[in-house]
Amino acid sequence: MRSHQRTYLKPLATFAAVFCVLLTAARAQRDALPSWNDGPAKQAIMEFVRKTTDESSQTFVPREERVATFDQDGTLWVEHPIYTQVLYCLDRVPAVVKEKPALVEVEPFKTVLSGNHEAIAKLSMHDLLKIVAVTLTGMSVDAFKTEVKKWLESARDSRWKRAYTELTYEPMLELLQYLRANDYKTYIVTGGGQDFVRVYSEEVYGIPPEQVVGTMGGTKYGYDKEGKPFLTKEPQLLLNDNNAGKPEGIHLMIGRRPYAAFGNSTGDQEMLEYTKAGDGTRLAVLVLHDDAEREYAYGPAQGLQDTKVGTFTQDLYDEAKKDGWIVISMKNDWRRIFAFEN
Amino acid sequence: MRSHQRTYLKPLATFAAVFCVLLTAARAQRDALPSWNDGPAKQAIMEFVRKTTDESSQTFVPREERVATFDQDGTLWVEHPIYTQVLYCLDRVPAVVKEKPALVEVEPFKTVLSGNHEAIAKLSMHDLLKIVAVTLTGMSVDAFKTEVKKWLESARDSRWKRAYTELTYEPMLELLQYLRANDYKTYIVTGGGQDFVRVYSEEVYGIPPEQVVGTMGGTKYGYDKEGKPFLTKEPQLLLNDNNAGKPEGIHLMIGRRPYAAFGNSTGDQEMLEYTKAGDGTRLAVLVLHDDAEREYAYGPAQGLQDTKVGTFTQDLYDEAKKDGWIVISMKNDWRRIFAFEN
Repeated sequence: MRSHQRTYLKPLATFAAVFCVLLTAARAQRDALPSWNDGPAKQAIMEFVRKTTDESSQTFVPREERVATFDQDGTLWVEHPIYTQVLYCLDRVPAVVKEKPALVEVEPFKTVLSGNHEAIAKLSMHDLLKIVAVTLTGMSVDAFKTEVKKWLESARDSRWKRAYTELTYEPMLELLQYLRANDYKTYIVTGGGQDFVRVYSEEVYGIPPEQVVGTMGGTKYGYDKEGKPFLTKEPQLLLNDNNAGKPEGIHLMIGRRPYAAFGNSTGDQEMLEYTKAGDGTRLAVLVLHDDAEREYAYGPAQGLQDTKVGTFTQDLYDEAKKDGWIVISMKNDWRRIFAFEN
Repeated sequence: MRSHQRTYLKPLATFAAVFCVLLTAARAQRDALPSWNDGPAKQAIMEFVRKTTDESSQTFVPREERVATFDQDGTLWVEHPIYTQVLYCLDRVPAVVKEKPALVEVEPFKTVLSGNHEAIAKLSMHDLLKIVAVTLTGMSVDAFKTEVKKWLESARDSRWKRAYTELTYEPMLELLQYLRANDYKTYIVTGGGQDFVRVYSEEVYGIPPEQVVGTMGGTKYGYDKEGKPFLTKEPQLLLNDNNAGKPEGIHLMIGRRPYAAFGNSTGDQEMLEYTKAGDGTRLAVLVLHDDAEREYAYGPAQGLQDTKVGTFTQDLYDEAKKDGWIVISMKNDWRRIFAFEN
């Protein structure tokens, strides 16, 4: 039987070998980042992943240490002309005033209630923070989650008339998946409210709540009438997750220095510096909004100074060039920006 | 050839079937919790895991929501007669005084430097907190990590003359592994310093730094002489992760309500209440220190009032009984307490 066994197995072995070769070729050909144009940004990202995940690389990084952090507004989704979360807060003002009628005659709430779009657009950052504080606190964490979910389902942006969660950048969603496929743990590190972003981060970005680092407010433990415990959102700022707050928030929430960090403004500067200052191969990336046609072109680097959202200054651009950060040109590096494009 | 093919495959198929049956039997027979005596505690834990991981169960929990939180001191390792971290702080006093000589004549530092064990043992909690604040802040996060590592390698406890990291409870280490094998994400939620516990949590408990929730201090981002960024530990308390601070810290760091929580004192009461108040099947567990021979017997439930460590009061015991929490008797439920036992 032995000689027959060999004859019988031969075609099977040949088939298996051919199958393996074909599979490997198919894998190599499949582009993990199809919405990216071939260019220096895409190349640098893929080279970084190879250098940190190839076991024969001198700068190989063990799986448990693979951390990649992403700013949200302007890096993962549209932030212009105003942060989505601020729009949520403005929309919440009537409900808050209903609960606290004394606010009806108090600025900036009076202006918001007037519905005068021009006046609302002129509110200062100080005014906006007052609105943020009042509309994001004073309810249970569960009630807050329900409210945000409801709002996201019905709210539409003024330019594309789409849900805000559709205004995510397709190339960055691909990048998140590509990094995770290479055993990177992906985190959001945002100046936005931690609890706000957590409501949709898993569904929209595939990032679970425990991997969202944001501006952190305190909560207060208490009991309802039936003695059931619950947490209330308090108007107490624990950490402002912007600028120096980003590396501080990363240390607090993750306790590891990232190997890759992605941002788009001066608010991300410290996170990128901190990331790049680590040993081995590290990646710091800035998204430059230079596509007025498909998205927006803004920030001083684009000659546009008056903006309430993330600023990409000339200084930031210079530091990026000097320190070897990658600058993504949305216009040149991204073949497609949104999933809803043709 | 066809009939021959069938003849040829038959023994293979039989072998595969027998192999599978044997494998399943071996798996079922292997006890995941060998250091636990059969009894109500072990039974309740295994029943909880079955009810939340069996897809046919009415209270099945999706993998991403499986969160189990563990207090550390007195729950995962020995806390009596004093918290290990406090011993670290006391040992650090001479080095701190060398840097700040003005402290040499100031209490409680003067008492610590005297080496008078009786006087040191009598220091109040207020004094100890002063020592904690001074010894745990003012250095870079990297320098702190190095110091703690060095101390853990050389320090030995006074009763067993072993490294503190050996004083972990074998049944709880098995339980951590058992839960992880069932796709539970295991977290430490400790009143101890978050940065302190993170130094050894991965090696000792298999729990990575990002899954350690502890008492949180602020850090400050800055640059060294060469312009390299680093974080300094600041004497600023962000969150006291004790009592109500435990569910608050869980919300801050995880953003999900645990399905299982383990503690041993009034400091864990709110975490256990919060866990048990969730929907579906939830598990709340208290470790009772009632084994004076193999470990310690302490707390008012054991008739011992004067203790600086976690207190298991009669009230806590009553709440546990009323609310269906599981109480582990170290004496009766644990066959073996330490790995170094015979």
